[in-house]
Amino acid sequence: MINSRRIINILGLLVIIEGFFVLFCLPVSIYYGDGDSLAFLITAVVMFAAGFTAWYFTKDAESSIGKREGFIIVSFVWVLFSVLGSLPFWLSGALPLYTDAFFETISGFTTTGASILIDVEAMPRGLLLWRSLTQWMGGMGIIVLSLAILPVLGIGGMQLFVAEIPGPAKEKLHPRVKQTAQRLWGIYMLFTGLEMVLLIAGGMSIFDAVCHSFTTMATGGYSTKQASIAYFDSGYIQYVITLFMFIAGTNFILSYFAIRLRFDKIWKNEEFRFYLGFVLFFTLVFSAGLFLTGGSSAEESFRLAAFQVVSIITTTGYVTADYLLWPPLLSVLIFVLMFFGGSAGSTGGGVKIIRVLLIMKNSYLEIKRLIYPNAVMPVKLNGRPVSQQIIGNVLAFVFIYILILGISVVVISSMGYNMDTSFGAAAATLGNIGPGKGLVGPVENFAHFPDFGKWFLSFLMLLGRLELFTVLVLLAPAFWRK
Amino acid sequence: MINSRRIINILGLLVIIEGFFVLFCLPVSIYYGDGDSLAFLITAVVMFAAGFTAWYFTKDAESSIGKREGFIIVSFVWVLFSVLGSLPFWLSGALPLYTDAFFETISGFTTTGASILIDVEAMPRGLLLWRSLTQWMGGMGIIVLSLAILPVLGIGGMQLFVAEIPGPAKEKLHPRVKQTAQRLWGIYMLFTGLEMVLLIAGGMSIFDAVCHSFTTMATGGYSTKQASIAYFDSGYIQYVITLFMFIAGTNFILSYFAIRLRFDKIWKNEEFRFYLGFVLFFTLVFSAGLFLTGGSSAEESFRLAAFQVVSIITTTGYVTADYLLWPPLLSVLIFVLMFFGGSAGSTGGGVKIIRVLLIMKNSYLEIKRLIYPNAVMPVKLNGRPVSQQIIGNVLAFVFIYILILGISVVVISSMGYNMDTSFGAAAATLGNIGPGKGLVGPVENFAHFPDFGKWFLSFLMLLGRLELFTVLVLLAPAFWRK
Repeated sequence: MINSRRIINILGLLVIIEGFFVLFCLPVSIYYGDGDSLAFLITAVVMFAAGFTAWYFTKDAESSIGKREGFIIVSFVWVLFSVLGSLPFWLSGALPLYTDAFFETISGFTTTGASILIDVEAMPRGLLLWRSLTQWMGGMGIIVLSLAILPVLGIGGMQLFVAEIPGPAKEKLHPRVKQTAQRLWGIYMLFTGLEMVLLIAGGMSIFDAVCHSFTTMATGGYSTKQASIAYFDSGYIQYVITLFMFIAGTNFILSYFAIRLRFDKIWKNEEFRFYLGFVLFFTLVFSAGLFLTGGSSAEESFRLAAFQVVSIITTTGYVTADYLLWPPLLSVLIFVLMFFGGSAGSTGGGVKIIRVLLIMKNSYLEIKRLIYPNAVMPVKLNGRPVSQQIIGNVLAFVFIYILILGISVVVISSMGYNMDTSFGAAAATLGNIGPGKGLVGPVENFAHFPDFGKWFLSFLMLLGRLELFTVLVLLAPAFWRK
Repeated sequence: MINSRRIINILGLLVIIEGFFVLFCLPVSIYYGDGDSLAFLITAVVMFAAGFTAWYFTKDAESSIGKREGFIIVSFVWVLFSVLGSLPFWLSGALPLYTDAFFETISGFTTTGASILIDVEAMPRGLLLWRSLTQWMGGMGIIVLSLAILPVLGIGGMQLFVAEIPGPAKEKLHPRVKQTAQRLWGIYMLFTGLEMVLLIAGGMSIFDAVCHSFTTMATGGYSTKQASIAYFDSGYIQYVITLFMFIAGTNFILSYFAIRLRFDKIWKNEEFRFYLGFVLFFTLVFSAGLFLTGGSSAEESFRLAAFQVVSIITTTGYVTADYLLWPPLLSVLIFVLMFFGGSAGSTGGGVKIIRVLLIMKNSYLEIKRLIYPNAVMPVKLNGRPVSQQIIGNVLAFVFIYILILGISVVVISSMGYNMDTSFGAAAATLGNIGPGKGLVGPVENFAHFPDFGKWFLSFLMLLGRLELFTVLVLLAPAFWRK
């Protein structure tokens, strides 16, 4: 039996948390007076009322939950947060079509950053803050946040944690879930604050600095400017954002070590070494490519290259240049980079570096196994063998990722889009990146999609953010059998 | 120690076989008098001389060979056949650049069918026959042919067989390799003859019927006409070719059962059911799509749809229409079909249906494993469990396939091609299909590639035809260690 009363109970609590975040935008909205205050107030009231009702009538529920409840709660809460979180956009009249409001919101929570806005600067500033805040909440994870602040979730917390962060490196988790969650959110807030200070010091307005710090650390990519980071004609600001995108794409446990000056532990981490290696290698390639073919100076070539490489690898999706106008090799490489993703335990999406790494090692071993069929050669990570079960899971993940990508390309093309755009939109949403190729390139947006397309892409964002399995498992008939 | 004397000995024998095939073209070339006869004569002499010399000076070699010798012989013979087989094109002056001659020849032997010819009808007919013949030899496999006719290869024959046909369904192999090889070539010749008769009955010239039967049964796709099968404005001819492409994409062991009227055995084969299912499903989709959007009649829509779906799934690569002009959904679907491939034990290339099938089953099970982590659930094929080792190999194959595809797209784009063309050229050559997308679409050709590009794509064709591992294993340093 699925403990549905307890599921409703927890979802109720979580919606109340969302209500507090909405309230956080209210004073800003009143201060700027752009006419969106009432929408925030109504939304907060709806969230508190709905959340309290759901919680109150199920507070006697049996508190134990299992694996299945974990999958259901995590999948549902992301949908629920998006359904309710789109109310401010819709009620204020800023996005009169609910489909658009929902797309913009789930693109926020999933830290995708794909937008249907055609004039970002025309939006009320309260809504722009809310838009950035959805990414910030989604970046570190709704569940992780709840675990940090709600003691009541202690029981079964691990189930939720695992369902929301299904990466292959679970051994890193601290056994006390609550402490891990608090530590993660603590570092997350620290870096967000640090970036704010540095951006303000560079001349950015406080409002823009707050919003951009939220969306950088979440590897979200929503900007308060239509031109994204290209708007800020400052090398300093672009370098600061590059640095923080890189940090956001790093395992937060490593950042925790960095703060405690345990650099040896960081260097021992194989995923980090590869992440750093990929970033440096591709930055070099792009710098050389841009310097040799464009009219940019060496410094500008390096800055544009580093920014765009880090932005795409970490799945942030900010832009400082229209990379589709770059030489074919570079624009194709950008597309390839969309399949790397951040590190495990980071806010980055996509396939994730650790999976790319494990699969490359396994492929090489598979070739070696042809030569020595009887030798036992396990894949090793950080010097330790990785179980065949984890390898099997990683291989299945990557295959299902590609399968879903293929199906999505077909579905999107059925709306009349060519292969370039279909591939770009599928990769950019499933990988939680934001901008893609073709008609969804870095200077384009997603407004031209038909309603069905927006809902379909929203589903892809959710699939990508929850790393496929948590959502897919709900679609398997076996899941619902006794 | 690698038994290199025996390797040279066997390669010598194989080159002599190739010489006989070249001689086969000589009378045709003399009959038509297009000026290519001398080139055939010289080529045959070179092959006999080189082959005999290699064989003669190593005929005392230790006859036993192992796995490693198998990999080396198979990889080398395909390169050697292409290096020498390109001589008629080059010596006759029809293709004055050796790079072009080599590309056209390896594209033949690997049954890819990618061409650099810009006017097929202008070629001497002897060369057109040789071009078709390379595909026919390559279709069933150079080694399989040798095993059928050379008793001397009996020892170690299995090593060669396995290296040339590395598919995951080895249990089907008859223990007596020679008998299996003879049976396969027997059926192959039977169907080739049958198609010739049916094409001639439909009004095709004997020369065209012979050439097209060779390239249909090999799923090669070389035509004697620049417009490919669209040239033959006959529904009958197009249906006949569709039927034989379908047969060529079927496991030849099943065709053997069909001849013996054991239809129960065919139906029990899960790979065949899926192959048939995919073909019927996509034919329906394309028929409906073409009928609803184009001005074609129902019959014509069905015929174009069935032809192109079968041509791409089986990796033949004939065309009756420029599918890039079809609605986006259909032209994207054609690209997706490029990743299916023929059945195991067929002449079709690509990923192969059986791998697609195993991987889909494994992915579904991986999701089920999340719900029942302790249950043992092996992937089943034809009702029997498949070992985890085979599944691991299949997963690694598909991942390496995609990895090579990704790297190739980058390499091709570095020559200045956009993503569409880069993807199209990589998928079409690695999958041994022929036509791709963009500048290598169905009415285009590969002549515009720079020399480096032609050699690179030649390598991809070889990788694809030998199903990656046989070639890749030679690149692993561990292979050459004692």
